[in-house]
Amino acid sequence: MASKNSKKYVYFFDEGSKEMKELLGSKGANLAEMTRIGLPVPSGFIITTEVCNLYYKLGRKYPEGLDEQIEENLKKLEKKMGMIFGDEQNPLLVSVRSGAAVSMPGMMDTILNLGLNDKTIVGLIRKTNNERFCWDSYRRLIQMFGDVVMGVEHDEFEKTLQAKKDKKGVKFDTELDAQDLKELVEDYKKIIKKAKRKDFPQDPMVQLRMAIDAVFGSWNNKRAISYRNLHGIPHDIGTAVNVQAMVFGNMGENSGTGVAFTRNPATGEDEFYGEYLMNAQGEDVVAGIRTPQPISKLKEEMPEIYKQLLDIRRKLEEHYRDMQDIEFTIQEGKLYILQTRTGKRTAAAALKIAVDMVKQKYIDIKTAVKRVEPQMLDQLLHKQLDEKAKEKAELLTKGLPASPGAALGRVVFDADTAVEEAKKDKVILVRTETSPEDIQGMAVAQGILTARGGMTSHAAVVARGMGKCCVAGAESIKVYESKQYFEVNGKRINKGDWITLDGSTGEVFRGKIPVVDPVIGEDFKKFMGWVDKFRTIGVRANADTPNDAKVALNFGAEGIGLCRTEHMFFEADRIKAMRKMIVAGTREGREKALSQLLPIQKKDFIEIFKVMNNLPVTIRLLDPPLHEFLPNEEEDIKEISEELGIGFDELKATINALHEMNPMLGHRGCRVSITYPEVLEMQVRAIFEAAAELTLEGYKIKPEVMIPVVGIVNEAKILKEQIVNVARKIMKEKGIKFGYKVGTMVEIPRACITADEIAQEAEFFSFGTNDLTQMTFGFSRDDANKFLPVYLENGILEKDPFATIDIDGVGELIKMGVERGRKTRQNLKIGICGEHGGDPDSVKFCHKVGMDYVSCSPYRVPVARLAAAHAALEEEK
Amino acid sequence: MASKNSKKYVYFFDEGSKEMKELLGSKGANLAEMTRIGLPVPSGFIITTEVCNLYYKLGRKYPEGLDEQIEENLKKLEKKMGMIFGDEQNPLLVSVRSGAAVSMPGMMDTILNLGLNDKTIVGLIRKTNNERFCWDSYRRLIQMFGDVVMGVEHDEFEKTLQAKKDKKGVKFDTELDAQDLKELVEDYKKIIKKAKRKDFPQDPMVQLRMAIDAVFGSWNNKRAISYRNLHGIPHDIGTAVNVQAMVFGNMGENSGTGVAFTRNPATGEDEFYGEYLMNAQGEDVVAGIRTPQPISKLKEEMPEIYKQLLDIRRKLEEHYRDMQDIEFTIQEGKLYILQTRTGKRTAAAALKIAVDMVKQKYIDIKTAVKRVEPQMLDQLLHKQLDEKAKEKAELLTKGLPASPGAALGRVVFDADTAVEEAKKDKVILVRTETSPEDIQGMAVAQGILTARGGMTSHAAVVARGMGKCCVAGAESIKVYESKQYFEVNGKRINKGDWITLDGSTGEVFRGKIPVVDPVIGEDFKKFMGWVDKFRTIGVRANADTPNDAKVALNFGAEGIGLCRTEHMFFEADRIKAMRKMIVAGTREGREKALSQLLPIQKKDFIEIFKVMNNLPVTIRLLDPPLHEFLPNEEEDIKEISEELGIGFDELKATINALHEMNPMLGHRGCRVSITYPEVLEMQVRAIFEAAAELTLEGYKIKPEVMIPVVGIVNEAKILKEQIVNVARKIMKEKGIKFGYKVGTMVEIPRACITADEIAQEAEFFSFGTNDLTQMTFGFSRDDANKFLPVYLENGILEKDPFATIDIDGVGELIKMGVERGRKTRQNLKIGICGEHGGDPDSVKFCHKVGMDYVSCSPYRVPVARLAAAHAALEEEK
Repeated sequence: MASKNSKKYVYFFDEGSKEMKELLGSKGANLAEMTRIGLPVPSGFIITTEVCNLYYKLGRKYPEGLDEQIEENLKKLEKKMGMIFGDEQNPLLVSVRSGAAVSMPGMMDTILNLGLNDKTIVGLIRKTNNERFCWDSYRRLIQMFGDVVMGVEHDEFEKTLQAKKDKKGVKFDTELDAQDLKELVEDYKKIIKKAKRKDFPQDPMVQLRMAIDAVFGSWNNKRAISYRNLHGIPHDIGTAVNVQAMVFGNMGENSGTGVAFTRNPATGEDEFYGEYLMNAQGEDVVAGIRTPQPISKLKEEMPEIYKQLLDIRRKLEEHYRDMQDIEFTIQEGKLYILQTRTGKRTAAAALKIAVDMVKQKYIDIKTAVKRVEPQMLDQLLHKQLDEKAKEKAELLTKGLPASPGAALGRVVFDADTAVEEAKKDKVILVRTETSPEDIQGMAVAQGILTARGGMTSHAAVVARGMGKCCVAGAESIKVYESKQYFEVNGKRINKGDWITLDGSTGEVFRGKIPVVDPVIGEDFKKFMGWVDKFRTIGVRANADTPNDAKVALNFGAEGIGLCRTEHMFFEADRIKAMRKMIVAGTREGREKALSQLLPIQKKDFIEIFKVMNNLPVTIRLLDPPLHEFLPNEEEDIKEISEELGIGFDELKATINALHEMNPMLGHRGCRVSITYPEVLEMQVRAIFEAAAELTLEGYKIKPEVMIPVVGIVNEAKILKEQIVNVARKIMKEKGIKFGYKVGTMVEIPRACITADEIAQEAEFFSFGTNDLTQMTFGFSRDDANKFLPVYLENGILEKDPFATIDIDGVGELIKMGVERGRKTRQNLKIGICGEHGGDPDSVKFCHKVGMDYVSCSPYRVPVARLAAAHAALEEEK
Repeated sequence: MASKNSKKYVYFFDEGSKEMKELLGSKGANLAEMTRIGLPVPSGFIITTEVCNLYYKLGRKYPEGLDEQIEENLKKLEKKMGMIFGDEQNPLLVSVRSGAAVSMPGMMDTILNLGLNDKTIVGLIRKTNNERFCWDSYRRLIQMFGDVVMGVEHDEFEKTLQAKKDKKGVKFDTELDAQDLKELVEDYKKIIKKAKRKDFPQDPMVQLRMAIDAVFGSWNNKRAISYRNLHGIPHDIGTAVNVQAMVFGNMGENSGTGVAFTRNPATGEDEFYGEYLMNAQGEDVVAGIRTPQPISKLKEEMPEIYKQLLDIRRKLEEHYRDMQDIEFTIQEGKLYILQTRTGKRTAAAALKIAVDMVKQKYIDIKTAVKRVEPQMLDQLLHKQLDEKAKEKAELLTKGLPASPGAALGRVVFDADTAVEEAKKDKVILVRTETSPEDIQGMAVAQGILTARGGMTSHAAVVARGMGKCCVAGAESIKVYESKQYFEVNGKRINKGDWITLDGSTGEVFRGKIPVVDPVIGEDFKKFMGWVDKFRTIGVRANADTPNDAKVALNFGAEGIGLCRTEHMFFEADRIKAMRKMIVAGTREGREKALSQLLPIQKKDFIEIFKVMNNLPVTIRLLDPPLHEFLPNEEEDIKEISEELGIGFDELKATINALHEMNPMLGHRGCRVSITYPEVLEMQVRAIFEAAAELTLEGYKIKPEVMIPVVGIVNEAKILKEQIVNVARKIMKEKGIKFGYKVGTMVEIPRACITADEIAQEAEFFSFGTNDLTQMTFGFSRDDANKFLPVYLENGILEKDPFATIDIDGVGELIKMGVERGRKTRQNLKIGICGEHGGDPDSVKFCHKVGMDYVSCSPYRVPVARLAAAHAALEEEK
């Protein structure tokens, strides 16, 4: 035969392997590999990518010998399958698929059922005893072939199909019967004839040749070329053509189809898991018309097949060293594996499988660590909604997934009511947006829902800090706080009504949906231990209270990267002194009020320092503008004016004078410390007195005083001098030395640009990426929700920059800050304490630019640890 | 004599020249120069800087021969002056001054009256016939000598002086008589004796030697060393010592003293100008006890001296080629010039002198251009307060000099009243802060005064645009708009009261102060013509109306760099349509309202384009957030709800929904165009229809469409596509082609960082440095006044970054933007249109980084042109 003399252009599945991707394409190589390791894959052959290139080189002609090789391989295929291509009694049907070395959506994909014609259909009907299915398969072949191979307008077929349904008065394709479909086959043939003046080819060999032509032709269609241009894929790698036998699970009672996982994808249990249907096609399993059987049933029904499947399961796990998801079909008592791929799994399963597979010596711990995606841990650490129950629930709307977890409760609209009602039942706090005044209400609520604000809005940040479920910025909600209800898409939810939040997806449901508690077991601890072996940067937590600090420690935090001191002032006894301080009007008045706050703050620090013994605690000095501590409502002003003994008008005037047009860019952070040095003095005194006293008690305290909102070196210089003076004074007073550091937040673009100057003063930098993102983009986190969703939908931005660091913009500034800072001070300690510190992609970025640590909400510490490990492992490559 | 053999260490004044600065120090070289050109400078000699170095090299000893040289020169000095050092009848007194090659405030400065002692004072009293003066001179000598030379605590003398005054029950030194001072001399001597166990030296030679020692010693005192370290001055250049004869104008009726200018420093007239007092010392002229005579009087009184002065005047101008300011003393009929320096002058004088001196061939035009400081032109172009009247007026407070000029008028507190009252009398609009709703009121007011807001606040920007006087951010003012008065430092100013503003200094006065109108004459035009010969970058104007455009053209603008379209919407007929558009809620509703605005906007553009025929006009698309167009007060909302036929609650809800926490970082600029593309479409259509129609009429229109607030390349990409589509459509509709450009504002830090990407779309960049400054610093221009003044006072910042570009921070981003932008698009046209475009230092920066043009308020165009010329000339060096 001629083929003997020509080059090998066609490979039977058993002649290839996964290493031959370039020659056989990705799909072909995989099919070959499955065949090679002994899986009963429906046989077939691959026409190599070389042929594709030759086809074009020869001016859309095939190299000599190809035809013969195809014929040879087709013979082999018929023999393997025990069926004959084009045979009227025992027809072999084949599929033709394109498949380059890289996945390419621009090309033709698949044509099924090749080999069907007016005659072979008779044999297929007899074998499947399912006339409707056979005619449906035939009409699909003609439609696909007409469209993809012969170039008939897709619409033509659809219009005819629709006409048919209209005539019969039905809505769905499935409502057409065998007779209808048979008629459609005739109609379709006419469409082709009319459009192309050619008949749909009845000769199966012609069908096959034309389909192969179409695959090679599709390599250079417009979509494929522009896809390659866009993705930088060379134009000369070519595509292969896969010709594979079709198998049918609906050929009678000894046929069937199913899907299975080599382990339980929900729990990770090491058990064979799946379901199947006898005398059915894959679609039937998916369609849900008949209820599939659990895979264990197959053991009784077809013990041999079941045994074979168990064998395959073992083989697959040994080969792929991961949990596999397989599709199988039984055709007339013979098992075929149609597909195997890495199985999707829940977080719990991912963790268990990773840990078990290390025990079973399938994988090493490095692989185990890589197998769990960082964001998956969120599922593990928070309550989750019962997935099944969720499907049936009434979805009210979708907001931003601001803080993961699930929560249900009765709706309340203000903090005070929340505190009251929470004594009786679970509550969800619903507000247009939250402010620091709502903290107490947030603390007692199961979850928080806001109509405004983004991923770093007050509600989102505080909720994440509390490890509490939050859906933020649900813009379709209108909250009528005074009238005690909210409206969403025409529905009204009253105070006391039950709702359920999914903070991981942003969904808001009416009523109660069962919630599944997180389980953190031994596997988790073991796994996190492995994680830390690979991680090279530190992970700290943002924690403002001793309780936060304890949670953080439990989750493996190596210190506190951000202790916000302003939250400490919102409790009842403190806010009063704080307000007195603000409205005092004179330095003396302020100092008097501050002297009331000093012992309280000191106690806070003592408690936090004790929890964090031996670990660094970065304390940020007062950050928000002072007016945040004052009330806005007339009623509250009245109350406070009486409380403080200040005239209502005077107090109101003071509040008005403190009002700012753009508080985010206003009188805040170190600017307050510079204009009111006594505020800083009090805070620093509280920190250092606490440090001194605990040092005397034998604790090892590592305070790091952090100056917020620095943009000019002189700000840092002046304030550092004050801080150092207070420290010296207290060391003298207490007669003891203690170590401490003074550093700055880097959250103002100018701080990044002039980092070389600022590092002359700062002993550490902590990037405040929330503010840095706001100012770099000019996006207010509170207002951006008016346009940011549109930006994300239209691809103006790929990701929400408040959730993941914008590498091209904000990232450039961070890089600049790191480089310039270290130029001045080589050993400058650098971290991040913005909300991005818990986002896996952002953690990787922080690792890459050489930060020493990331700091995030306590509940995100494990996520950050894992992300940091992944970053280190990715770098290894 | 020994001196013959040693090196020359001492130079008599007539042996040096201004070229010998290094050897003689700056002061010495100048004295020598004045002597050299024949000015009758009191004689003296200089001990060289070399001696200083030798002094230290030899371990605080003098080189051999120095003593002899000093004695020789002293002899020469006695001879020249006809007086003898230490002589009881005819005593020569001398001063000793330090003087290095560079000015060094860290060193000892001056000791006067050396040579006075208990005996020589008798001769001096006889000669001056002024006992009190002589004793005062003596006690000053002892005090200065005791302090500076002998190192007695300065305080000791002060305490004794104070005790003396207390005892006498007087407040001022001048109230002590000759006897008191004589007693003080004795007291002072005792102080020295007690502190140093040494007497105040009576020997004049000892006094001189010790003073010389002190000068050389002061070279290495702590202050001087740290000053040199700070300013990078080498430590080995040394100081010289100047010994000069003292002359006295109070030695009788043929003595006197005066100051004079070689030209009139107020008008620049080429006339000898000055004043003098007979039988007086310099202090008497300054003290204002006796009224000096105009210099012309001297012609009668001492015609010879006057002739000599005229001669000197001519000599000085020929020598220095600039107007000089001289101090002279006549001692017993002999004229001495004590000092000559470049004279300070008003803007008008500077201009006239520069132009005249070119005519007189004293200087070339390049020098003339350099002689006028850019900011001086502000004085020329705006009304000024009468300086004399101002001194007597009641200063209420000082705010920011937000827009130069002067204005007086009756106080009004809202725009409507302003419009009403302005029909009757001049008004000043006083508000806590202004908003776009105040535009009409600002337009009719003489000036604007606000209590809040910085150099780029709304009031400041709009006022500068109008060329109108404005004092902004006068924080000590409390405005009670509803009660129609304002309070300042306890004073109350009611509606209708007269106040006067000085926008060039920020001063606010009670009552009316006469105002001087600006005079722009031929000299100005000639001068600006020279300016443009040296300037290399373009100057455009920010102009929003045809009138602005005309003013700008008159001032020499070469196009419009910023035409803000939003101001166009605030007029009565327009704001209504605008509001309808905003509250419409549907695209259709918006389009309907916009269709009413289209013809109005088109008309605006037609008029502006006509004025700017042949010149580029950069039009910025809608920039502010939409809520700026909606009312805030309940009352206004009610009115508008009726006007628009929308329910009050609904309208209020819409306004609330549009409310933003940080509008500066909110839904504005291109973000509005992206969410409401129909707004952009209308504006662009108005621009291009205007362009098309005028092109048909034969005009040459150069529209440049500018997209504001871009931070992401995709924003520019999407909007540019829309703009181009509209242009194509209109060209097709009108059947004509017209040129246009599409570019972006660069005002978001991220735009600078990703300028390379954005330049793929933008054909030009215009830096919006107001916003860029806000975001780079995180300073809201409206709120920064709460801390910015403190920052400037304490030197945290050297300059207000809203007035002058912050080169280290914002400037770095600008540089980055320019470099990255041009990397992508080599011929990218780059300008600036922030308020900095009219600030001389900022213009120089723009020149330096390679911008193509600056754009500023029309009234600042001449300033910018001159600054640009200076920048180019500085570069030449």
